[in-house]
Amino acid sequence: MHQCAGGGHGQQALSRGGSSMNETIGFIGLGNMGQPMVRNLLKAGFAVKVYNRTPNKAKDAVAAGAQQVNRPSDAATAGGIVITMVANDQALEDVVYGVDGFGEKLGPGGIHLSMSTIAPETSRKLAAYHQQQGCQYIASPVFGRPEAAAAQKLFVLSSGPKEAKERVRPLQEALGQRVFDIGEEPGNANVIKLGGNFMIMAAMEAMAESFNLAEKNGVDRKLAAEIYASTLFNCTIYQGYGQMIAKKIFEPAGFQLALGLKDCNLVLEEANATKTPMPLASLLHDRLLSSVAKGRENQDWSALTRIAAEDAGLE
Amino acid sequence: MHQCAGGGHGQQALSRGGSSMNETIGFIGLGNMGQPMVRNLLKAGFAVKVYNRTPNKAKDAVAAGAQQVNRPSDAATAGGIVITMVANDQALEDVVYGVDGFGEKLGPGGIHLSMSTIAPETSRKLAAYHQQQGCQYIASPVFGRPEAAAAQKLFVLSSGPKEAKERVRPLQEALGQRVFDIGEEPGNANVIKLGGNFMIMAAMEAMAESFNLAEKNGVDRKLAAEIYASTLFNCTIYQGYGQMIAKKIFEPAGFQLALGLKDCNLVLEEANATKTPMPLASLLHDRLLSSVAKGRENQDWSALTRIAAEDAGLE
Amino acid sequence: MHQCAGGGHGQQALSRGGSSMNETIGFIGLGNMGQPMVRNLLKAGFAVKVYNRTPNKAKDAVAAGAQQVNRPSDAATAGGIVITMVANDQALEDVVYGVDGFGEKLGPGGIHLSMSTIAPETSRKLAAYHQQQGCQYIASPVFGRPEAAAAQKLFVLSSGPKEAKERVRPLQEALGQRVFDIGEEPGNANVIKLGGNFMIMAAMEAMAESFNLAEKNGVDRKLAAEIYASTLFNCTIYQGYGQMIAKKIFEPAGFQLALGLKDCNLVLEEANATKTPMPLASLLHDRLLSSVAKGRENQDWSALTRIAAEDAGLE
Amino acid sequence: MHQCAGGGHGQQALSRGGSSMNETIGFIGLGNMGQPMVRNLLKAGFAVKVYNRTPNKAKDAVAAGAQQVNRPSDAATAGGIVITMVANDQALEDVVYGVDGFGEKLGPGGIHLSMSTIAPETSRKLAAYHQQQGCQYIASPVFGRPEAAAAQKLFVLSSGPKEAKERVRPLQEALGQRVFDIGEEPGNANVIKLGGNFMIMAAMEAMAESFNLAEKNGVDRKLAAEIYASTLFNCTIYQGYGQMIAKKIFEPAGFQLALGLKDCNLVLEEANATKTPMPLASLLHDRLLSSVAKGRENQDWSALTRIAAEDAGLE
Repeated sequence: MHQCAGGGHGQQALSRGGSSMNETIGFIGLGNMGQPMVRNLLKAGFAVKVYNRTPNKAKDAVAAGAQQVNRPSDAATAGGIVITMVANDQALEDVVYGVDGFGEKLGPGGIHLSMSTIAPETSRKLAAYHQQQGCQYIASPVFGRPEAAAAQKLFVLSSGPKEAKERVRPLQEALGQRVFDIGEEPGNANVIKLGGNFMIMAAMEAMAESFNLAEKNGVDRKLAAEIYASTLFNCTIYQGYGQMIAKKIFEPAGFQLALGLKDCNLVLEEANATKTPMPLASLLHDRLLSSVAKGRENQDWSALTRIAAEDAGLE
Repeated sequence: MHQCAGGGHGQQALSRGGSSMNETIGFIGLGNMGQPMVRNLLKAGFAVKVYNRTPNKAKDAVAAGAQQVNRPSDAATAGGIVITMVANDQALEDVVYGVDGFGEKLGPGGIHLSMSTIAPETSRKLAAYHQQQGCQYIASPVFGRPEAAAAQKLFVLSSGPKEAKERVRPLQEALGQRVFDIGEEPGNANVIKLGGNFMIMAAMEAMAESFNLAEKNGVDRKLAAEIYASTLFNCTIYQGYGQMIAKKIFEPAGFQLALGLKDCNLVLEEANATKTPMPLASLLHDRLLSSVAKGRENQDWSALTRIAAEDAGLE
Repeated sequence: MHQCAGGGHGQQALSRGGSSMNETIGFIGLGNMGQPMVRNLLKAGFAVKVYNRTPNKAKDAVAAGAQQVNRPSDAATAGGIVITMVANDQALEDVVYGVDGFGEKLGPGGIHLSMSTIAPETSRKLAAYHQQQGCQYIASPVFGRPEAAAAQKLFVLSSGPKEAKERVRPLQEALGQRVFDIGEEPGNANVIKLGGNFMIMAAMEAMAESFNLAEKNGVDRKLAAEIYASTLFNCTIYQGYGQMIAKKIFEPAGFQLALGLKDCNLVLEEANATKTPMPLASLLHDRLLSSVAKGRENQDWSALTRIAAEDAGLE
Repeated sequence: MHQCAGGGHGQQALSRGGSSMNETIGFIGLGNMGQPMVRNLLKAGFAVKVYNRTPNKAKDAVAAGAQQVNRPSDAATAGGIVITMVANDQALEDVVYGVDGFGEKLGPGGIHLSMSTIAPETSRKLAAYHQQQGCQYIASPVFGRPEAAAAQKLFVLSSGPKEAKERVRPLQEALGQRVFDIGEEPGNANVIKLGGNFMIMAAMEAMAESFNLAEKNGVDRKLAAEIYASTLFNCTIYQGYGQMIAKKIFEPAGFQLALGLKDCNLVLEEANATKTPMPLASLLHDRLLSSVAKGRENQDWSALTRIAAEDAGLE
C-alpha cells in the first residue's frame, strides 16, 4: 500500500482529491511521537512548518527539511491543514485558541487534524469551535509507540466530516500502516483510542494477577509470560508488556504511568457522561491512583501491576 | 515438527526413550475434546483402549480403530499409560479410585497423563496417591478448543517427574503443536491452565466494557471489535470472542458458562490457598455467578459480558 | 443547649460576639431543606431575607415572617451574612458571581455561610473569591434530612476562618442540634460531608448483599433487616434504609439517586485530586451509574441496591 | 427480662417446657467466648459439664462450679443438651463425630445447641446427622465479643425445629440479652451471623476509605471518626472500630484477622452455593487475603483497613 516513496505517494493522493505535496502542512508538537511523524511527512514529500513550545526540540525536524516557526498561529496557512500531536487536552486547547493560537488563522477551508490522545468531549468542543470559523476538525489519534511511528507502522483512527477525511487521508497514510474510519462524529476516534488504552491496561492487570499466582506456586514468571504470549495471546501487547511485568522492570518508561492515569480518567469521564458502568476501568483507576500515591508516576504505566504484586506480598 | 506421520513419529519418540506404538494407551473421556484427541493418537500409530461413562460416545473412536472397554480399570495396562480427559475434578477422582477405577490396576511403572482442567490441589492429591502405588502422575492440561484438538494444534502443558514427562512426550506431540514443560511440581501445569482461562475471561470483560462505551457513543460494536483485533490485539482470543461479544451472540456454546464459573472458582481457591489477591478474578467471578443466577449457565462463557451490557442499559 | 427561645438565644450569641437578631440574614435556596431551616431562623428571632429561583416556593417562608427578594444580590447586606442552601456547585456559583450574584454586594466584613453539599474544590475557589472582596467564606454542610431540619436536629459541620465561625455560630445552633468544627481549611467540612454520604451508600450496598444472601437462603429480608438494626447496627441509617432495602420500596424518593451519583462523583474527584484510592466508592459509583442507565435517577438513592438484587436474579 | 436470678429463671423456663436446672448441660469449647458463657449458665442455676481440648482452660469454670470431663462424649447425657462453642467447622465436626465425639452418646431426645460461627452448610450436615440419631440440632451463633458474653449481653440467633428451640430458650436467655428466631431451616442462623460479620467488615472498609480521604485533606482522622460515630453512625460498631481505624492501632486483637478471613470465605462459599453475587464481599476478601499475605493474620480484623491506607501512600 505504501510502496510508493515520496512524490509518488503525493500524486496518488492528489488524484483522488487528497492533500498534495504542493500544500504546506503545519505540525504542532514535537515530542517522542511528533518527531518521527514529521520525518515521515517530509519523506513522503510534504512541506512541513513545525512548532514546539520548547523550540530546541525542533532541531532534528529542521535538519530533515522542516521549517520552524515561533508561534502556533504561524504553523497555519489560511485554508490549509494543521496537525496537532501534543501532551493533553489543555495543551491542545492552548495552541488552538490560546495566545497566538492557530484557530483563527486557519480560516475557511482549513482542517485541524488532531492526533493527540484527548477526551471525546474536547474533540466535540473543538469541532464546534472550528466549524464557527469555517474550518473542519478531524479526530485522528493513533495506536503505536515511538518506534512504530518511526517505522510508519502506526494505526490511525479517523472521525469527522467525510470530505475532510478524504483530504487528510494521504497524510494519515504517510504516517501509519492502516487508517480506520470511525464515522463522522468528531469524538468517536477518541472513544476508540481510549477504549484501546483501557484494554491494554486491563491486559496488564490480568497478566499481573496470573503471573503472581504462578510465582506463588513456584512457577517462573517469565516462563508463564512466554507461554501465554506464544499461545492464547500471541500479540504485541502481551508479548511486550508480558516480559516487563514478568521481570518487574518498569524503567525507563515507554509511556509514563501518569499519562496512563490521565487516560483512565478520560475513560471514566466518558463512561460517566454516557452512563456506561465500567468496573474493570474502576479497578484499573484505583491501581493507577495508588501507584501515583506511592510516587511511581514516572515509571512505565505497566508499573500499575506492582500493586497486585504488593498485595500478594511479593514486593 | 510433526512432519512425520504415524510410525515415523513413534520411532523418533522411541529412540529417545519415549512411549512407542508398541504399547497400548488407555484413554478415558470421550467428550468434545477427547474424541478428536483419540483420533490423532490412532493416526500417529498408537493402539488405544477407550472408556467413556456413556458408552455410545465411543462409536467414532472404535470406527477409527480404538478398542472400547467397559470399565475405567480395563483401560489400564500394568505399567502402561492412561490418559484422562474428563469433565471435572470429581469425575477424575471417580475414574482413578472410584468403583472400577484404574488407579490400582495401573501399578508400578505406570503413568497417569491427566489432561483435564482441574484444580492444582487435585493434581497434588492424585500425584501422591499414584506415587503410593508406584506410578507417576503428569498434569497436562491443554489450550485449545475442539477444532484445535482435531487439527493437532493444541498447546500442551506438562508438569511432573522428568523421566515420566519424557516417556509421554510422543503422545503429547501427537496431540498438539507444542509442548511446554512447567517443571516437576504436579499442580503447576494446572496453575498455568487456570491462569490462562482467567486471562481469557478478563479479556472478554475488557472487550465488553470497551464495546459498550463505543456503542453508547454511537460507534458500531463490530467495527470496534474489528479495529482492536486487527491492531493492538491481533490474536485469536480477541478475534474470535470479539465478534461474539460485539454481536451479542452467545449460542451455541463453544465452552459453557457453567464451566467458566467452575474454572473461576478453581482460580480463586488456588488464589486463596496461596494468598494471592486477584481482584480482577473476583470481578469475573461475580459476573459469572450473576449469569448463572439469571439462568445462562448453558450459554457460551463469553455471555458473562451480558452483565456489563445490562448494567449499561444496553439489553 | 437550645433551651432559650427566640430573643434569649440571640442575646446569648451577641454576648460572645456572634450574629445577633439585629442583623438581617440573607437565605438563598428554598428547597426541601431550606424551607424548614428558614422557619427555624425566624423562630430563633433572626430577620431573614429569602431568595429562590422559583419565586413561589417562598410563600411559606414569607407567611412565617421572612422578606422575599427578587435577586440573589438583594439577599445580601453589606458586611452581613448570607446563607446558601442550593442544589449543586453550579447553582451555588451562579448565585455568588452569576448575573445578580450577591458576591460583590456582600462586601468587606461579610460572611458567606455555605451549607449546600458541594465539592471541596468549589469551597476553596469560593473562599478565594470572597477573600478578594474582603469577605469570608464558611463551608457548613449538614447531616440530616428535611424532617431533621424541621426538628432543629441537623448536625452542622463548619470549616473556615476562626472569627467568622464564631460569628455564624448562633445561626448554626438555631438550625441544628450540634456543630462540629473541622478547622480553618475551607473545603474540609465538605470532605467530611461527602465522606458521610459515601459511608451511607456503602452501608446500603452492604445491607443489600447481606439481605440478598438471606433471601436466597429462605430468610425473610425484613427479619434480617430488623435483626441487624437492633443489634450490631442500631443506628438511624441502618434502621431507616434497612427497611426500604428489605422491602424494595424506593419511592417516593427522600433523596434522589441522581443526587447520590452527583455526590459519589464529588467523592471520586476529591479522591483523585488527593491520590486516595477508594475501591468501595468505585463500586458504589458503578452501581449508581447503572441505576441511572436504567432510568432510576428519580428513585430514592437506596435504589442503588437494586443492581445487587438483579445480579442475584431477585428482581 | 433477666431480673430473676438462678432458680426463678429456671422455673419460668420449666413452666413452658424449656430446659430446667434439673438437667445437666454439656458445654464444649472454653475459649474467650465459652468461658464467660459457662459462668452465666452456672449463675443461672444450671449444672454444667465442661470439655475443652486443652484441659487447663477449664480451671475457672471448675472454680465457678462446673464439672470437668475428659472427652467430648462425656459432656453428653442421653437425651440431654450439649452446647458447642469451638473455633471452626472442623473442630466442631471433630467433637461431634470424631474420636470420642458426643454425637452417638447424645441419643434420642438430645439437642445439640451449636453456637460457633460456622458455615450454613456445616449446620445442614450436622442437622441431618443428628436427626439420624434421633436428636435435634439448633444453630445458634451469637453477636457480641467476650465482654458482651461476660455481661450477658449477647444477641442470640436461633434456627432449628420449633420444639427444640423452645427447650433451649432458657439457656439462650441465660447467655444473652435477646434471642432472635430465624425459622426452622438449620443453616439460617449461620447465614444471619455471617451476614453480620460481613457487614461489620464492610463498615470498616468504608470508614477506612473515608478517614483516608479526610487525612489526605488535612483533617484529623480521629475527629472524622468521632463525628461519624456521634451523628450518622452512632452505634457500637462504628464507635469501637472507628477509633481503632482512626488511630491505626490493631493490636492486641479482639478478633483475629485470620478468623475474619475464615468468615469471609464462608460468606463467599454460601454466596456461591446460592448464586448471590456479593462484590463488596469480594473486595473485603481481597483485602483480608492481602493482609494475611503480608503477615497480619494475628492482628485485629480491623487491620484489613491497612491495605486502603497503604494504597493511599499513608503507611
